[in-house]
Amino acid sequence: MSEDADGIDGDSDANSEIGVEIPPLDEAAREQARGRQDGLAKPPGSLGRLETMAAEIAAMQATPEPTVDPAVITTLAADHGVAREGVSAYPQAVTTAMVETVADGGAAINAICAANDVDSIVVDMGVAGEPEADALDYRIDDGTANMVEGPAMSRRDARAAITAGQEIVADHAADAGMIGLGEMGIGNTTASAAITAALTGRPVDEVTGYGTGIDEETRARKIDTIERALAATEPDPEDPLDVLRCVGGFEIGGLVGVALAAAERRIPVVVDGVIAGAAALLAREIDSQVTDYLLGSHASTEPAHEIQLAALGLMPCVDYEMGLGEGTGAALAIGVYRSACRVHTEMATLDEIGVELDE
Amino acid sequence: MSEDADGIDGDSDANSEIGVEIPPLDEAAREQARGRQDGLAKPPGSLGRLETMAAEIAAMQATPEPTVDPAVITTLAADHGVAREGVSAYPQAVTTAMVETVADGGAAINAICAANDVDSIVVDMGVAGEPEADALDYRIDDGTANMVEGPAMSRRDARAAITAGQEIVADHAADAGMIGLGEMGIGNTTASAAITAALTGRPVDEVTGYGTGIDEETRARKIDTIERALAATEPDPEDPLDVLRCVGGFEIGGLVGVALAAAERRIPVVVDGVIAGAAALLAREIDSQVTDYLLGSHASTEPAHEIQLAALGLMPCVDYEMGLGEGTGAALAIGVYRSACRVHTEMATLDEIGVELDE
Repeated sequence: MSEDADGIDGDSDANSEIGVEIPPLDEAAREQARGRQDGLAKPPGSLGRLETMAAEIAAMQATPEPTVDPAVITTLAADHGVAREGVSAYPQAVTTAMVETVADGGAAINAICAANDVDSIVVDMGVAGEPEADALDYRIDDGTANMVEGPAMSRRDARAAITAGQEIVADHAADAGMIGLGEMGIGNTTASAAITAALTGRPVDEVTGYGTGIDEETRARKIDTIERALAATEPDPEDPLDVLRCVGGFEIGGLVGVALAAAERRIPVVVDGVIAGAAALLAREIDSQVTDYLLGSHASTEPAHEIQLAALGLMPCVDYEMGLGEGTGAALAIGVYRSACRVHTEMATLDEIGVELDE
Repeated sequence: MSEDADGIDGDSDANSEIGVEIPPLDEAAREQARGRQDGLAKPPGSLGRLETMAAEIAAMQATPEPTVDPAVITTLAADHGVAREGVSAYPQAVTTAMVETVADGGAAINAICAANDVDSIVVDMGVAGEPEADALDYRIDDGTANMVEGPAMSRRDARAAITAGQEIVADHAADAGMIGLGEMGIGNTTASAAITAALTGRPVDEVTGYGTGIDEETRARKIDTIERALAATEPDPEDPLDVLRCVGGFEIGGLVGVALAAAERRIPVVVDGVIAGAAALLAREIDSQVTDYLLGSHASTEPAHEIQLAALGLMPCVDYEMGLGEGTGAALAIGVYRSACRVHTEMATLDEIGVELDE
């Protein structure tokens, strides 16, 4: 559930470059949904947070009968030049291998999507080398540059990544009931920690975790790498395109575009872990209204995630100490949001079953 | 996840009356499952509790490839004589109305089961009057007697209720991958609080909640009612059949039988809220091995639930401040357990995708 953002100007300079128009929440639909809930065949409030979730989604979708279907996870993949600094437990080639695994249906996200009746879309936003995977092609470039040596990408590419994300929604998810933000990319928890530090002003040490399972020595190197990258590129925290340019990634920019384009269409957006969270922070800097359309998923093991959720006003929906990415937490959460919507729309009313409330 | 119970004798006197034989967990299957997880195409441990869940279910089902399917919620309904003491916000007739609503597919449990691909079975264990609902008929009697005036039922009926629960599994759920314990019955949070107080020795005030949404005055009356019932019937905490006889209900006895019969067949049992929790406590007193086959679902708003879960060694799987019953929390949890099992069995291995772990 999103809360109002803190007086950030929705019409930022970056937004004049991107051109996003997000409608306000439909409070009348929320009230209608709440009214329906009070008459359902159950004690008032006994479905707890499921009731709040359904009313929130009703306000996003501007209907008292919200639905998550068809639900889709967009898993965007790209490579990161900063991986050359040795910040991950895995070599860069794993990104391509994982894109191929998702395309072949063998990744965690495929199984969790299948178990929760969610479609899975995998997108190449710029993995290194020549991928043979059957992924959607929205490539910006052959991986980003190493942010320790200078900006990860050009401002033009930062804008192009966001535009590509918007196009992914227009081309492949315009009719979705709910979209989950997934990603893959060796090095992208490093980029996400850098973005979170740049936008929130929190110390790098606080927002840097163990990613794919690195040891203490590697984490120390990761922190040092992020600090050097921020010093080398000096991202302007007032300018989200500049932050994305300096320390971002193509899949992160793509997710910014997915979130903005979904919100424009009143499609609720389920934020996954710490990379999706960094994208959501950037999207909020472009148009603060986007937070109205964001929903929490799981509580990630990455320390930046809690900081991101607090900044975005989001509550996690499940907590299984997961830290995998790909959109796995979002897919699990969509299962819960579906239950909330279906129980809201399908239950009989007390009137229908002939029970009086006050006796 | 269940932990070992505290040295309760699995071969209780009550068990010699009931005759339950529950097999031990298959630790070899658990180890095989863990071994598989370490080779899956993801960072080790990155699926967090989903991995523990899958390994636990593997040990229950004695297979390294566990599944929740076909999953079923058995919603057992009965009436309670103690409802005449004014302990609920609803009149007794609501039990029959809700049985009809579930049978017609209009209850919360129907929608949440449908959203989570879970079958729903509704069973009349003894609602008052002549129900017209299309429910399975395992009736013991026309509601229980008022426990304030004496035992709620005879020892013979207590045994018959448990036997009926065992038959429900044999007749309708013998091939289930997972069974969730659901219930309906005006007055049954009163019976459950009394059972929990009798078995755990906790004060009635600590285990008594607001049920269907009663006010403070009604809750005070509910506490007084339970204390009078315990004083009038003096249940023997060492004898679960006596506790069921004195302050139980037919649907609660039925759930005891469902849990025992499922555990005998290595079918994992998802405990729902405070009524299912009371049944699980009784089942444990009959055969402590049953706890090996119990899984948590949600964290109910009823205060006895946390006490029950601690006694049973169970962790809730979701927490949405729900207090509805019917099996709704169990149905939500089954969706999560399905994700855990499917990601475990369907993911590719690192070998298959050609990634080395240690480089």
